[in-house]
Amino acid sequence: MTGKPSSLETARQRIAAAYSPDLFGTLAGQLASTLTDHFSRVESNSGPVLNWTPPTDNIAAAESWLDRSPAADAGVPQPEELQQQFARCLETMLARGNNLHSPRYLGHQVPASVPLAALFDLIGSATNQVMAIYEMGPWATAVERAVVERVGTQLGLPAGNFAGLITHGGSLANLTALLTARNVALGDAWEAGFPQEQPRPVLVAHSDAHYCITRAAGVLGLGTRQVIPAPLDDRRRMDPAKLDELLADLRGQGRQVVAVSACACATPIGAFDPLNDIADVCEKHDVWMHVDAAHGGAAGFSEQHRHLLDGLARADSFICDAHKMMFVPALCAFVFYRNPVHRFETFRQDAPYLFDPSAPGLADYDSGLTTVECTKRAAAYGLWGLWSLFGPRLFADMVDVTFELGRQLYNRLVDAPDFEPLHAPECNIVVFRHIPEELRDAAAATIGEFNRRIRRELIESGEFYIVQTNIDGVGALRVTLINPLTEEQHLDRLLGSIRRIGSRLLEG
Amino acid sequence: MTGKPSSLETARQRIAAAYSPDLFGTLAGQLASTLTDHFSRVESNSGPVLNWTPPTDNIAAAESWLDRSPAADAGVPQPEELQQQFARCLETMLARGNNLHSPRYLGHQVPASVPLAALFDLIGSATNQVMAIYEMGPWATAVERAVVERVGTQLGLPAGNFAGLITHGGSLANLTALLTARNVALGDAWEAGFPQEQPRPVLVAHSDAHYCITRAAGVLGLGTRQVIPAPLDDRRRMDPAKLDELLADLRGQGRQVVAVSACACATPIGAFDPLNDIADVCEKHDVWMHVDAAHGGAAGFSEQHRHLLDGLARADSFICDAHKMMFVPALCAFVFYRNPVHRFETFRQDAPYLFDPSAPGLADYDSGLTTVECTKRAAAYGLWGLWSLFGPRLFADMVDVTFELGRQLYNRLVDAPDFEPLHAPECNIVVFRHIPEELRDAAAATIGEFNRRIRRELIESGEFYIVQTNIDGVGALRVTLINPLTEEQHLDRLLGSIRRIGSRLLEG
Repeated sequence: MTGKPSSLETARQRIAAAYSPDLFGTLAGQLASTLTDHFSRVESNSGPVLNWTPPTDNIAAAESWLDRSPAADAGVPQPEELQQQFARCLETMLARGNNLHSPRYLGHQVPASVPLAALFDLIGSATNQVMAIYEMGPWATAVERAVVERVGTQLGLPAGNFAGLITHGGSLANLTALLTARNVALGDAWEAGFPQEQPRPVLVAHSDAHYCITRAAGVLGLGTRQVIPAPLDDRRRMDPAKLDELLADLRGQGRQVVAVSACACATPIGAFDPLNDIADVCEKHDVWMHVDAAHGGAAGFSEQHRHLLDGLARADSFICDAHKMMFVPALCAFVFYRNPVHRFETFRQDAPYLFDPSAPGLADYDSGLTTVECTKRAAAYGLWGLWSLFGPRLFADMVDVTFELGRQLYNRLVDAPDFEPLHAPECNIVVFRHIPEELRDAAAATIGEFNRRIRRELIESGEFYIVQTNIDGVGALRVTLINPLTEEQHLDRLLGSIRRIGSRLLEG
Repeated sequence: MTGKPSSLETARQRIAAAYSPDLFGTLAGQLASTLTDHFSRVESNSGPVLNWTPPTDNIAAAESWLDRSPAADAGVPQPEELQQQFARCLETMLARGNNLHSPRYLGHQVPASVPLAALFDLIGSATNQVMAIYEMGPWATAVERAVVERVGTQLGLPAGNFAGLITHGGSLANLTALLTARNVALGDAWEAGFPQEQPRPVLVAHSDAHYCITRAAGVLGLGTRQVIPAPLDDRRRMDPAKLDELLADLRGQGRQVVAVSACACATPIGAFDPLNDIADVCEKHDVWMHVDAAHGGAAGFSEQHRHLLDGLARADSFICDAHKMMFVPALCAFVFYRNPVHRFETFRQDAPYLFDPSAPGLADYDSGLTTVECTKRAAAYGLWGLWSLFGPRLFADMVDVTFELGRQLYNRLVDAPDFEPLHAPECNIVVFRHIPEELRDAAAATIGEFNRRIRRELIESGEFYIVQTNIDGVGALRVTLINPLTEEQHLDRLLGSIRRIGSRLLEG
């Protein structure tokens, strides 16, 4: 008879079970097969888009899994048990998620990502390749450098003569770029603290800028009240002539401008700013030009649409989310600096235990010096993998197909007497209202509320997934054609579903 | 004869190839099998740890894959080509990575993560489940809520009566918590901008705090010079009596203290601050107490080691990285607030197109309101999955085993006349120097440089992966026992390898 194993022995047994390559192989094979079935079903348009469940129900379910997990004294779980448990977990996770790969998934600006990209991502996460210093993730670092160089040049920057990095999302990308702009504009603010001169420095931002731009002003010490909205033209694009006036006014008031933040495109209706004209104005006033091209940057891959970005490469900084219109899973956001020196203006420190004086040349490859993250995941693997397999043409294709879907939806809205498109789309974002005859003379607020109620019923039914927004303070429906598997037939069906729900609401 | 397909038709064909469930299934199966072989080999100690290649070589290789990818006019790639290309990609990625799962991988504070956790992560990334608003990722949101609640209570917070969130890494977690502290301390700084009173507000931080704490001061407008180091005791822990004096002094000077930032544990030697005593001092002076428990927080799962965290739950905010000592892949970092109301002090805005007035109760479940990210990946899937399969005991086991390895290494260093441990380890971080007889009377700088050169040779050889640090300005070797598959025999072999390289350096 062997004695009772010591606690540390049992611990090692449980650890060995968790790290078992055989178990990994079994579960990975099971997952590969289940996900394949899942994508077959969802991509071919079967089942609901959103599996609507109220938050409290989902949270209770997620907690119950933790509560029913093996107790401390239950011994080491056996492979068969683990396999069954994994299958049940997987079933729950897929059944309660959002099916972005359904052709009836039509928005937020989060794509039906190319599933293969996630396999490249798995290589990074399973082996836990990370960055901060080069030696920690040499291949992760190299892949990031390679895609930064290629995406940057595709978006018009001169090969080998700019800087860039990847971070965890567009909000952080904008924050990083605006922090850099702040440090360049305000001298020693990094070390000394936010300057105490009056009047306070300001940030001039597109009136429809994503909320993270105003947030950045709050985070960086400018204060959200120091965000000055740049006037828009009738297509909701920043108006260069009015920007010129505004900057002259601000100069007259003695107010320093940390940056002008433009959009390519702005979130609400997908309007692309006239970047060349804005660049002229910023140059004239010697102000840092930043462009949030989180959504539209990928248009630079398309011969047909890249004109929307004319002037982008003249910006001092701009961002582009590969996890939007390059169709990789979240998160993979680029920050680019026209002047390569600027990447070292963001943070101005060193960490002796990270950056090794015995190999000083290597520090140039340490991502941690220029990104807000210390440990950073290998966020570029998916993009690099897709590019390696399919070439950059795939990214152009996805832009072309989804922008064309935007145009098709718009054409339908124009032709339908009971729909009102709120703009001619420049890309794959389309905002509109359903206004049936009964509501034609109703107050704007009533129509807005009616459209919001339609949307909520629509998404909770699982039939379509679209979003809502406010235009001039009134609710509207908003579609982003961000699944390239969507076809025109789905657009017809969408209008039908909206009409059906609308007429039921009017009857009710 | 059919006509030449239109450009949009070809685009749709290429897209169909990329999204093909069959191709996904084939490549996923291939990946499952290759990764299984990889883990078998690496975990059983065969091959190099780090595959050292200079950065320029790796970058050239990563770029060459992009350059050799299919040209725009090459037509749609065929499944067989793609399968072969994927196999080659995978081989390159594994051959040029860092093998954290080798038992001879002994640090940075990035673990040999449990490979199974990455399978749960894949479910999220393949289906692109994200958060920002609840409906976008209902299950992702629920899973995050569930693990926040369970991890928080495990670390001593009262069930249902605190707030927490997950963000992309410890640096962002600390930034988020300190931003909250800043906003609470400084009134309307968020809206009005950083206050312009003199003297400037300060942040009191552990002298050995991670560099991201000082960075946070730079980002948030305090200025890095306003970081006041808190004096340490002889074990490099924050000294509560001296902290008390320091806070009294600062009050005497009329300087507002935004927060006291303590460590559990500090990075250099893994010292755990006396949190209860620090909490007493912070309460006395009515100052926000923050604890960076990125590394040590997981000790709360271990009966044997949780005493190190006594007082943690009295902090106003603290962070814990699950991608460190909970052994999930990067990134999954927790921020906790003792007072649940504080989570709404971080950011003070709304985005109308995100937060739907037709369902106002749902906004409480919209992660975007409280995290620096807008779109956020389902970063908790790996942790939730491991917990569901193995129970919380697994996390305790990994803490117990790796902390014990730290003790074993320390014992060996104490017994070896040619090694000098620089501290008695409180956890799995051990710092030491190799001082062979020939160098016993050498200057400290010489010994530091000697140890740095040993480390560089050691990691480039692929035999072991350890890191280096500065203690009192002098180089030292630093080991983090962060692969629970490491055994005592590997520790013996480590000392042998260091001796061998050292003696070669002395001869050369």
